[in-house]
Amino acid sequence: MTLCIISGSSRENSNVEYFAEKAAASYKGDVTWIRLRELTINQIHDQRHDENGFDPVDDDHAQVVEAMLNADAVLFATPLYWYGMSGYMKTFIDRWSQVMRDPDMRFKERIAGKPGFLITCGGDQVDIKGLPLILQFKHIFEFTGMDFKKYFIGEARKPGDAAKSSRLDQLENFFS
Amino acid sequence: MTLCIISGSSRENSNVEYFAEKAAASYKGDVTWIRLRELTINQIHDQRHDENGFDPVDDDHAQVVEAMLNADAVLFATPLYWYGMSGYMKTFIDRWSQVMRDPDMRFKERIAGKPGFLITCGGDQVDIKGLPLILQFKHIFEFTGMDFKKYFIGEARKPGDAAKSSRLDQLENFFS
Amino acid sequence: MTLCIISGSSRENSNVEYFAEKAAASYKGDVTWIRLRELTINQIHDQRHDENGFDPVDDDHAQVVEAMLNADAVLFATPLYWYGMSGYMKTFIDRWSQVMRDPDMRFKERIAGKPGFLITCGGDQVDIKGLPLILQFKHIFEFTGMDFKKYFIGEARKPGDAAKSSRLDQLENFFS
Amino acid sequence: MTLCIISGSSRENSNVEYFAEKAAASYKGDVTWIRLRELTINQIHDQRHDENGFDPVDDDHAQVVEAMLNADAVLFATPLYWYGMSGYMKTFIDRWSQVMRDPDMRFKERIAGKPGFLITCGGDQVDIKGLPLILQFKHIFEFTGMDFKKYFIGEARKPGDAAKSSRLDQLENFFS
Repeated sequence: MTLCIISGSSRENSNVEYFAEKAAASYKGDVTWIRLRELTINQIHDQRHDENGFDPVDDDHAQVVEAMLNADAVLFATPLYWYGMSGYMKTFIDRWSQVMRDPDMRFKERIAGKPGFLITCGGDQVDIKGLPLILQFKHIFEFTGMDFKKYFIGEARKPGDAAKSSRLDQLENFFS
Repeated sequence: MTLCIISGSSRENSNVEYFAEKAAASYKGDVTWIRLRELTINQIHDQRHDENGFDPVDDDHAQVVEAMLNADAVLFATPLYWYGMSGYMKTFIDRWSQVMRDPDMRFKERIAGKPGFLITCGGDQVDIKGLPLILQFKHIFEFTGMDFKKYFIGEARKPGDAAKSSRLDQLENFFS
Repeated sequence: MTLCIISGSSRENSNVEYFAEKAAASYKGDVTWIRLRELTINQIHDQRHDENGFDPVDDDHAQVVEAMLNADAVLFATPLYWYGMSGYMKTFIDRWSQVMRDPDMRFKERIAGKPGFLITCGGDQVDIKGLPLILQFKHIFEFTGMDFKKYFIGEARKPGDAAKSSRLDQLENFFS
Repeated sequence: MTLCIISGSSRENSNVEYFAEKAAASYKGDVTWIRLRELTINQIHDQRHDENGFDPVDDDHAQVVEAMLNADAVLFATPLYWYGMSGYMKTFIDRWSQVMRDPDMRFKERIAGKPGFLITCGGDQVDIKGLPLILQFKHIFEFTGMDFKKYFIGEARKPGDAAKSSRLDQLENFFS
């Protein structure tokens, strides 16, 4: 069994990655990390309705999607930036509209039913102001047919806050 | 009086830009368009807590922010991609965390009280599945002190749909 | 064709009823009004898991449900009280948990697929603060299998405001 | 220090009351329970704009409000019925619009700044479908000036489920 963690953090050793690590410790299987900031992923160019469809894009997007589709479960870990997922994460997800139309990828077929998890964290009333993000992921998961298993909202402002969080015990059995 | 329209569309002649144009026709003053897809805007690197703060970034972000801060009103026009703003728009907004800390920019002071408008459009139950985006912008506007005046949700799937929309009359007096 | 309007207003000639009337003028068929304030509807006593199920309740609930199930379409019209539907409306809907278990009523079978509409109105940033209500009705409609066709959010504070609303033209073709 | 728990459950020994009890065990001070189902509280008759204001209502509403205003903190405990607070709870809160206008009550003055807590529970994807309720309470608390401290969403379907919940440890320090 394999878990693919896709991180939208823009800095090393971020709080949301700390929370994701703690959660992943309860996963019985292999864990793969993808940190979007270390990769090149272009913005989508919406060519869904172009006669010739999408132009090929030479970046790292396809390899991340492959890792995601190969895993048995996917954890999206994104800081709450401006009350939503980070630009890294959004740019990555927007491009799904392209790979969904690549028959070799078999995106829809492979993602359907896959368990999806979400971890976010922020500092400004995150338990409330993070809710639009949860609602958005619900729609994302529904559209793809992923199974939205669980989410965790962490509170953290400064680097290192996650390690001192009183919510860490909620992550101990996150995957069990 | 000037209105700055910031578009997060990824394609030319998009539906959301059509809706924004119709709305802008009721604006009494000059209208400036910024199409993020024509510019280079990098993802944020969160250095809020770095000793030396943010490294300077050589891209088009500052000029867009200047145009926005100089305008009397701002209209954010974004397609609903994956039930949220486009990656172009999110990448742009994430970087506000950087310019907010640039004393020469006087971001907070200049944006406070500025009227903000939002136009989005999509096809999959957009009146309902677009609501998390509205809630997110509410938080964004509140945080900056912008005044969230009005939003419009358009329904459109294929290129050209906006021109045939039964909702166009709602835009006739959008700014009056 | 028949439309059943269920009003949760607590006062005569309310703004939301004005909006509902304007909308109903575009309905091609008969229109039936139910004003919950004129009826007696008790709070639910949750006996879903009682051995003998629900005790019969002697009030007007069943007749309203019958009218609703007999109609071809249902419009829920509720003022936004405290950022949600009125107590009248909520008390009425809570009791669906009881009638759903009454085999003679065939509630689930008869409500499935029925077109549902929602009109609300309020005064305090209603376009934004009314959104949790829209999201709640989405879940209600989904659970019953109703088809959530359309909603309208009106702005009104004082008696008579609805008649002066700049949004009335949005209601002209509400049902067509 | 005193905590007032206001329960909107419609049955004895409900799951949400179980969760509220567990949370209250961590409260350092006296705890008062109010179970709305044991009281008589009428629906509001909106007379905010009547010349003579609201007619007096002979029921138990004022005494509940007094208990709430006298407490140092308030915990609202409501099952998630139809993706919102119960009719008992909504009927109670709607009437605040009346007592707010009673000068002897000094409602606004006494409620401002009071810490507010929310516990709900339900069974159908409650972590997601319960979010509109959280958003609604945010608006309620903001309007009154209460300080929305914390919420807990429990998962429970059948009587007794709460006692077996894997989330009970989250309640151990709910008030500390």
